[in-house]
Amino acid sequence: MRQLATILAEFSQLQLTSSADQARAIMRLSLMDWCAVGLAGINEPAARITRDIAVGEGGQGRASILGARGLYPARAAAMVNGVTSHALDYDDTHFAHIGHPSVGVIPAALAAAQMHDRSGDDLVDAALIGAEASVRIGLWLGRSHYQSGFHQTATAGAFGACIAAARLSGLSPLQTAHALAITASRAAGLKAQFGSMTKPYHAGMSAQTGIETTILAKAGFSAQLQSLDGENGFGQTHAGQANLDAFEMLGQHWLMTDVSHKFHACCHGTHAMIEALLSLPAPLKTSRISTIKIDTHKRWLNVCNIPTPDNGLEVKFSFAHIAAMVLQGVNTASLNSFSDACAGDPNLMSLAQKVSVQPVPDLAETASRISIKTNDGQEFTAEFDLNQTMKLELRRDKILIKAQALLGPEKAGKIWQVLSDLPPNLNIFVQEISPPEA
Amino acid sequence: MRQLATILAEFSQLQLTSSADQARAIMRLSLMDWCAVGLAGINEPAARITRDIAVGEGGQGRASILGARGLYPARAAAMVNGVTSHALDYDDTHFAHIGHPSVGVIPAALAAAQMHDRSGDDLVDAALIGAEASVRIGLWLGRSHYQSGFHQTATAGAFGACIAAARLSGLSPLQTAHALAITASRAAGLKAQFGSMTKPYHAGMSAQTGIETTILAKAGFSAQLQSLDGENGFGQTHAGQANLDAFEMLGQHWLMTDVSHKFHACCHGTHAMIEALLSLPAPLKTSRISTIKIDTHKRWLNVCNIPTPDNGLEVKFSFAHIAAMVLQGVNTASLNSFSDACAGDPNLMSLAQKVSVQPVPDLAETASRISIKTNDGQEFTAEFDLNQTMKLELRRDKILIKAQALLGPEKAGKIWQVLSDLPPNLNIFVQEISPPEA
Repeated sequence: MRQLATILAEFSQLQLTSSADQARAIMRLSLMDWCAVGLAGINEPAARITRDIAVGEGGQGRASILGARGLYPARAAAMVNGVTSHALDYDDTHFAHIGHPSVGVIPAALAAAQMHDRSGDDLVDAALIGAEASVRIGLWLGRSHYQSGFHQTATAGAFGACIAAARLSGLSPLQTAHALAITASRAAGLKAQFGSMTKPYHAGMSAQTGIETTILAKAGFSAQLQSLDGENGFGQTHAGQANLDAFEMLGQHWLMTDVSHKFHACCHGTHAMIEALLSLPAPLKTSRISTIKIDTHKRWLNVCNIPTPDNGLEVKFSFAHIAAMVLQGVNTASLNSFSDACAGDPNLMSLAQKVSVQPVPDLAETASRISIKTNDGQEFTAEFDLNQTMKLELRRDKILIKAQALLGPEKAGKIWQVLSDLPPNLNIFVQEISPPEA
Repeated sequence: MRQLATILAEFSQLQLTSSADQARAIMRLSLMDWCAVGLAGINEPAARITRDIAVGEGGQGRASILGARGLYPARAAAMVNGVTSHALDYDDTHFAHIGHPSVGVIPAALAAAQMHDRSGDDLVDAALIGAEASVRIGLWLGRSHYQSGFHQTATAGAFGACIAAARLSGLSPLQTAHALAITASRAAGLKAQFGSMTKPYHAGMSAQTGIETTILAKAGFSAQLQSLDGENGFGQTHAGQANLDAFEMLGQHWLMTDVSHKFHACCHGTHAMIEALLSLPAPLKTSRISTIKIDTHKRWLNVCNIPTPDNGLEVKFSFAHIAAMVLQGVNTASLNSFSDACAGDPNLMSLAQKVSVQPVPDLAETASRISIKTNDGQEFTAEFDLNQTMKLELRRDKILIKAQALLGPEKAGKIWQVLSDLPPNLNIFVQEISPPEA
């Protein structure tokens, strides 16, 4: 294999053809999803702290910050928008990447697009190429990298952010290779931070690194090009598997079409169950229900099986309570649904008592099987695997429902209108996400 | 052992007593040395590029940048000053740290001191505590960390920079522990970058990380406190040796008193020889010399034994030519001495031809032995080991000679006057290093 920095630098220059249309359509959905979780996250403490610092520091205004008026240095905007959009942990995931591609890459792409007056189409293409690269690099680093303690959103994400920013900043292939090589010294982030604000900070780090290394390389800064995959390079020093299959069909097949969006504001372990319940043919009168049986993979029993949650946060980790919510028609895409009041709701609590959860050996981690029996002896069953391919239209509808739940129908509709226009207008898009409504 | 973040956070608050006077005196010398190599480095490409970016970006002015007028965000100043002071690779080294303590820590300390209007004494104390911490962390990470490909200047340096900045920024012990824990996700840098601008960039990264994590933690940002030494923490994920002796006598014994300053603007492998030659009792008329025999450790034969250098850069790696320079009274502390003209100087070339270099098994890597024979049968011998303790007065004199060679006697004298004042005045110090003379 040729040097990885060179391969990726070439990929950054790819002229997309109609064969990438499906992938581009997915990236527009990821942009919509990113806007929704980002704007919904602006009041989270991690977002507020990083935003206040960036606003206080100021500097030459080139890019927008979610939740702040005015323009800021691209570096600062990329950082704050990365933190903000990952603050709720409600953004997209890619299982091959083992991380969150959009929150590390889109903030860098958006800031670079604004800095260089690029079009909305350019933004979509660069975000796609950067996110695709981050997925491939995550796959190249492999499970060994993740298991040994690194957080791919932060590490693979930084390389993807760099590629997106380099493309939009007009770097030559050689400059892009240097930017990627500088990134090899900056890409960092530990899984040990999960549960703290430093987890969303990792997404900001990725995006900021992408901007900073691009600006440096464009100005002539140099690094050693073998520092990604060479002796003592990033892969070797960071428990990388050096999985060479990771770059097969690069630019021809798009792994980003398998990106997974989160449609429910609760623990991922409950999502297959929720989808199975939602797939039942017609709304079921809850008073008719006698038992609700949930089959799941055994790993979730220690994760999201709180039988009687005490508060809204605990509800997010309760199969029983969430099953009751879905059957009662509560919108699980909305953050507000997971409230303390919901935990104490007597109707939900009594319905939740009819739920039993059991581990089933043949089920995948991403799957769930449900069986509901009624007082009159009827049985309704359904099964869902999150890994199954979702039709683009269904995915779009679900993302729009999520965005409406997070932002309200009007705001979500406006943003989607800009993003679904061909070509999308970058300036109008930016106006929709900044300044904040409040 | 208690949690490392907690131990280091406590150390950041240490009230220094007179028992630290020797260490403080060394830190003043390191500050003088740092100013000299920093100001001498402002025209290096890595320095110029990072400075131009920072000046172009602007932002709330709080701290000074070597070679730039005006004030800049502390983060930006720390980055540029780190890069600039390491650009010549002429700054101090610590063999236990396996890195360059001053260039990673002093830029953060200086920026934080300016940002919070602290005194010159506060700057010296914080730089000492930060540098000492970086040496201890470097030792804790150990040789395994370095050998596997990490650059301690960048990694251990970031923690030291954080401690210095946290002290000067008035963080509580808990806030400091959080700043250190955020640093565990940012500290990064690969040895694979040696030979490129990204090597000095690592020093800037350290300093910038120290400022950024301190500002975040002061504003309430959180990280997992076990992310330094816990399961899947920084040490474990980065091939750290977890050498527990590293923190013995912390705050009582100062490893920074063993810091090594570079007194000659050429390859470190030639320094023991230069010192041995300089230790000869009286200047030797070079026309009397018949042979010059240099004993050295075998590792240097592949590093700095170019017999007839073609240009100034190659002179830096030539035992023979440098021996001739020293015997002719050329100032090896001056960067300008290592010129193309020097490589082609016929007197030096003919004297260099009398030099023979041989590896000697019993010599340390840091030692050299010389023997000079004259036409009339006299022999002069000398030996020098860089590892031997140098009296404070001698070290001071050598650093002042180096500073004079780099900056001119007047400028060097002014800076030393401020630094040797008790208490040193931070504002006057800053005026001396910024704006530039040119």
